[in-house]
Amino acid sequence: MSAAVSPLAPKTFPDMPALRGVRMATAAAGIKYKNRTDVLLMVFDAPAAVAGVFTRSKCPSAPVDFCRANLAGGVARAVVVNSGNANAFTGAKGRAATELTAESAAEAVGCGNNEIFLASTGVIGEPLDAGKFAGVLGEMNGQAQGDFWQEAAKAIMTTDTYPKVATRTAQIGDVTVTINGIAKGAGMIAPDMATMLSFVVTDADIASPVLQSLLSAGVGPSFNSVTVDSDTSTSDTLMLFATGAAAADGQAKIETADDPQLDGFRAALNDLLKDLALQVVRDGEGARKMVEVTVTGAETDAAAKRIALSIANSPLVKTAVAGEDANWGRIVMAVGKAGEMADRDRLAIWFGDVRVAVNGERDPDYSEAQTTAVMQREDIPVRVDIGLGAGTATVWTCDLTKEYVAINGDYRS
Amino acid sequence: MSAAVSPLAPKTFPDMPALRGVRMATAAAGIKYKNRTDVLLMVFDAPAAVAGVFTRSKCPSAPVDFCRANLAGGVARAVVVNSGNANAFTGAKGRAATELTAESAAEAVGCGNNEIFLASTGVIGEPLDAGKFAGVLGEMNGQAQGDFWQEAAKAIMTTDTYPKVATRTAQIGDVTVTINGIAKGAGMIAPDMATMLSFVVTDADIASPVLQSLLSAGVGPSFNSVTVDSDTSTSDTLMLFATGAAAADGQAKIETADDPQLDGFRAALNDLLKDLALQVVRDGEGARKMVEVTVTGAETDAAAKRIALSIANSPLVKTAVAGEDANWGRIVMAVGKAGEMADRDRLAIWFGDVRVAVNGERDPDYSEAQTTAVMQREDIPVRVDIGLGAGTATVWTCDLTKEYVAINGDYRS
Repeated sequence: MSAAVSPLAPKTFPDMPALRGVRMATAAAGIKYKNRTDVLLMVFDAPAAVAGVFTRSKCPSAPVDFCRANLAGGVARAVVVNSGNANAFTGAKGRAATELTAESAAEAVGCGNNEIFLASTGVIGEPLDAGKFAGVLGEMNGQAQGDFWQEAAKAIMTTDTYPKVATRTAQIGDVTVTINGIAKGAGMIAPDMATMLSFVVTDADIASPVLQSLLSAGVGPSFNSVTVDSDTSTSDTLMLFATGAAAADGQAKIETADDPQLDGFRAALNDLLKDLALQVVRDGEGARKMVEVTVTGAETDAAAKRIALSIANSPLVKTAVAGEDANWGRIVMAVGKAGEMADRDRLAIWFGDVRVAVNGERDPDYSEAQTTAVMQREDIPVRVDIGLGAGTATVWTCDLTKEYVAINGDYRS
Repeated sequence: MSAAVSPLAPKTFPDMPALRGVRMATAAAGIKYKNRTDVLLMVFDAPAAVAGVFTRSKCPSAPVDFCRANLAGGVARAVVVNSGNANAFTGAKGRAATELTAESAAEAVGCGNNEIFLASTGVIGEPLDAGKFAGVLGEMNGQAQGDFWQEAAKAIMTTDTYPKVATRTAQIGDVTVTINGIAKGAGMIAPDMATMLSFVVTDADIASPVLQSLLSAGVGPSFNSVTVDSDTSTSDTLMLFATGAAAADGQAKIETADDPQLDGFRAALNDLLKDLALQVVRDGEGARKMVEVTVTGAETDAAAKRIALSIANSPLVKTAVAGEDANWGRIVMAVGKAGEMADRDRLAIWFGDVRVAVNGERDPDYSEAQTTAVMQREDIPVRVDIGLGAGTATVWTCDLTKEYVAINGDYRS
């Protein structure tokens, strides 16, 4: 666990407004440590619409299996999130723990097990004692309040050094709706998410299938475009809930994804998702620098993204960034190993605005001093033009430092 | 550059016998540093048979392109290897440098440019001044001697902390033949090789197409099964030469790959290739521990290898090994992200002989003390049984330490 807040943390955090229709409470259930806040309960006063995207791991955690099954119902009344134990690779005991947790939550809130959603983060492979929840969820439901977003974000942190929150507003027709989101994650972060949990709630009145369509499209250029260490968690969960409270202001329920009234909401949601995703990278374990990798001129957008991720996941690129070394030869290496079409003699590479290579060799006007100045920044844009087509992609990563090794070389014990 | 020799270095190095038909010399041509040995010339007294495998990078170095073109001729008279500059991503200048080097070598040895093979390792993207070779190759040819393998291995080192050599003998019919090999490489090491150069020579009399068949098959379970950091170089080169000098002892030339007389030779060659490949991993940048990852029970051998490499390349697995932490949850994570079929509830995982997980959860007899004892070893075997099929694979990697970050965060400057 890192003591100090990441130097890349946002300089200011937004005030998170309460959001109609959702209340939250936290508790210390003693899951791994005593007297540490480790459970978050999110309660929807009325049945909320729900959407979710999850890890693509072939070995997902028990809560991920549980959520996928309940998503079909399209109704959420409560979310239970715990840190300290991922309830992953826990076999039949893991399934039993999700059932017991859901039962306790359903009883506390007064709904069916199939209206409960669960997420767990922490150590993999240790049985989770769900009995610890049973005693606290009823009381938490009684205490739950709307103005509680910062505390909720704090409750789900593991190796995070700061809580991740974001808020946006949008117009649907004449009605102003709000979107609030929280996220956690700092390591085991790679596309298809990672030990990344994020919960986003809006008071807009939007049907579940529409929410799912918005979320599935929004995750691509946000959470699925960030990587800390190329490792993908068993537990990644991003959920979007709509309480529908804005119906009281006269907002007509949105029933189809192509409704033009959704344009502003979609833009606000995508912006919020990107905000949260970048906050996750900026809290990358041991990170001292943020790198934005843009690839242009690839054969397709998908090819551009594979090349961008090859660069963003390369330990040699990431250690060079840590050393403030404008080692563009390693960028060439990473382009070459991506497996996508590339022609050495058409490549061009920029660090910030400084073009360091063009037409397959060092830029004739290359300036070591200019390039070094870019590398000394906290935020480093890297751009590679493949020179073959119109495919583009942008992904974000952080540097690979000795602190990453220190944090992960002694985490479990 | 690391000062200290890797703690994983072999405890003893073999005496490398001279090998009939090949002579070597080294020189300090001042390619990057003054007064540092940076060129190796290998001369074949008579035209030798030749085979090669090279990086699969889409941005290969100029020498790789040059060797691929000359391989079609099937005849080698000399090899020129330099360190200090990879002659990669050097555009038209790079091609001109290979032509000029080949011309100088051909003149020195007295053969055609198409009988010369080249390899370069070092910084990417800096133009290589091939004029520096012109003056030294003639003199080197005059001085070249057979009993020079250790020196040759030293001359091609970059971040290596020890020279990598291996020797074997085999019988072809009644004749004893010898195989000698040298290799270099310590970082940017991943399957499809890496900044890995290796040159293997035998005095056996074997036709070039047969050599190529032996080498292409031999590279799979050796050099293509090791990874230090998942990064693949632009310059990987593994070449096998046969001087044919054993013909003087009565060895009948081998003309077909299925000749049963090759069995002993094939086994000896494969053993030597594995020896050299493991020496490369044992010199992985910053490595303190060697990890052998064996996957059994996958759907196919190819699936097993992808899962094994997902484990071997995972920063979270490698940092856990560095921390002597038996964090088998990260093994589950790496299995899950590999994208191959896996059923959480059938997985079993061993560290050494200690089974830590079975049937999708922690082994009921799990012993933290026993497992920790395995993690404290220098060589750590990890085995994962997927429980689905008969596919198996073994790959080798090293841990990810702060020293790796230090070495690569300040290499170019």
